[in-house]
Amino acid sequence: MNARQIVLAARPKGMPTVETFRTEEITLPDLQNEEVLLKGLYYSVDPYMRGRMSAAKSYAAPYEVDQPIHGGIVAEVVQSTSPEFAKGDVVLGYLPWSTTIIAKAKDLKKIDTNLAPASYYLGILGMPGLTAFFGLMDIGKPKAGETVVVSGAAGAVGILVGQIAKIQGCRVVGIAGGPEKTNMLLNEFGFDAVVDYKATTDLSAAIAHATPNGVDIYFDNVGGEISDAVIQQLNFHARIPLCGQIALYNNTEVALGPRIQPFLLTRSVLMQGFIVGNYASRFKEGIVQLAEWVKTGKLKYTETIVEGFDQLPAALLGLFSGNNTGKMIVKA
Amino acid sequence: MNARQIVLAARPKGMPTVETFRTEEITLPDLQNEEVLLKGLYYSVDPYMRGRMSAAKSYAAPYEVDQPIHGGIVAEVVQSTSPEFAKGDVVLGYLPWSTTIIAKAKDLKKIDTNLAPASYYLGILGMPGLTAFFGLMDIGKPKAGETVVVSGAAGAVGILVGQIAKIQGCRVVGIAGGPEKTNMLLNEFGFDAVVDYKATTDLSAAIAHATPNGVDIYFDNVGGEISDAVIQQLNFHARIPLCGQIALYNNTEVALGPRIQPFLLTRSVLMQGFIVGNYASRFKEGIVQLAEWVKTGKLKYTETIVEGFDQLPAALLGLFSGNNTGKMIVKA
Repeated sequence: MNARQIVLAARPKGMPTVETFRTEEITLPDLQNEEVLLKGLYYSVDPYMRGRMSAAKSYAAPYEVDQPIHGGIVAEVVQSTSPEFAKGDVVLGYLPWSTTIIAKAKDLKKIDTNLAPASYYLGILGMPGLTAFFGLMDIGKPKAGETVVVSGAAGAVGILVGQIAKIQGCRVVGIAGGPEKTNMLLNEFGFDAVVDYKATTDLSAAIAHATPNGVDIYFDNVGGEISDAVIQQLNFHARIPLCGQIALYNNTEVALGPRIQPFLLTRSVLMQGFIVGNYASRFKEGIVQLAEWVKTGKLKYTETIVEGFDQLPAALLGLFSGNNTGKMIVKA
Repeated sequence: MNARQIVLAARPKGMPTVETFRTEEITLPDLQNEEVLLKGLYYSVDPYMRGRMSAAKSYAAPYEVDQPIHGGIVAEVVQSTSPEFAKGDVVLGYLPWSTTIIAKAKDLKKIDTNLAPASYYLGILGMPGLTAFFGLMDIGKPKAGETVVVSGAAGAVGILVGQIAKIQGCRVVGIAGGPEKTNMLLNEFGFDAVVDYKATTDLSAAIAHATPNGVDIYFDNVGGEISDAVIQQLNFHARIPLCGQIALYNNTEVALGPRIQPFLLTRSVLMQGFIVGNYASRFKEGIVQLAEWVKTGKLKYTETIVEGFDQLPAALLGLFSGNNTGKMIVKA
């Protein structure tokens, strides 16, 4: 059987381009024992993928050159040699970017499409949802009345962090770019204030103005100068779940910035870098809580769905120029 | 009754000098109810005092200009209107730099000079000891076999952190300046390795060489370029108790350095700023454990004792030029 896959053509220096990727036709071998033949339905594109394109030490093994990009994929079972999966089942896995995929049964999880649409398992009930949930709840430990600032607030994780913080009774300030995102966060997602970093010439003043009681939790999805400005407003015993540094992924040299340790020291601040995998043993707890909030309407969820397997590279690149609202997904 | 006190003459810009201080003769009023007249015995000088000389937001209220410097003092009761204290008792308090002091009874704690010498309550059983104990044990959470790096290793806190980490079964690497401190840490205090930052031209290479298995805990007493070099060697799930930033106390502008968030993020690192006061409710636990380690010889303790009340400013300034070995104390 033939398939089309997308491989890493070359490790990018700085910002990746369409040249970073190559589409190939391949022929799949016969199914072995305990294997499953899958047809890809939904493909997740995420900022962390940029990190895996580099050979540098990071939280996950880098992608190999000339080998397919891997990511979260929701797929339908076409054929199975495992008693655990039958034709028509819908599954989730960390799989290669290919139109048709042979996977080991042990690497797949069946998902319940009655509980939520299949694509939700790549978002609110998947990596971004669990990242927002555990980062905010376990590291941030929000208390009612506290001020929570979220950078990258209109992104897949940020939009959930803000809503979960509201559920916890916090005042929520988002940082996002452009009037469209700003209005969406204020009017559709219940944020108390939004700082539009593209519309301000003095970011520090704008953030100070939006946080008259200081900042108790700063959920950092972006890093760089936006974080420099928020860090000045931290309260004593503030917490910083460190989730993303998208502004730095494409830098080839170590960036300079103001030293933050004096701020963290004098205010007894906690900063914790994390990836969702650190919470693997507690995923079920998160999925159950998130699904309940979605069901009861407390948590709204948005996806940007791009149509066409061949759009995967462009969709991924779009993340770095801020094209997406909510979770970015490619539908095959 | 007359006394001599040392006041803050002017807020220093950058490094304080002897001009920052002024000695004054004062006349003490009569004792009121529930007050105690004290003769100062031992005066603590500590790096945090530099922070209180500035008017900036920090973890403690700033010293006031023309008012006495305050700090940890061990004193002897001369006269008391409180039933809790009698002539001859030895007490500990956060008190003004004065040869004779009137204090409120509620602000004093009796200390047991049979358990340890009186001056120890300003060091190993006081602020530096409890800082080392809670910073390492509660934030660092050392496990046997891990590598612990301590900057400012020959200072009051660092020398204890290294020894406590050894008691926990860790490999301990100190960072200190000069052959004298280096030899002392290696030969007298059981450090496994010491990087003499004054003797190396490539700090990153020297630290990498001393930590072949990476760094699991970095107890940071100094900040600046030394920390930049250690942070490159952090292992996944490393912890950084952020205790001091002495290299920055005397900077008048925000210092620039490499952004550390990408390192903390990709390695799931915890960084926690703290002051010992955060653990006030658990001091007893720390004192009991530290006293036992001292008693059984597992923990060695050194003091630098300077003689003469009038030497207080010079002793404090000496901290910033690395003159001290272990805890710096002035004996009246």
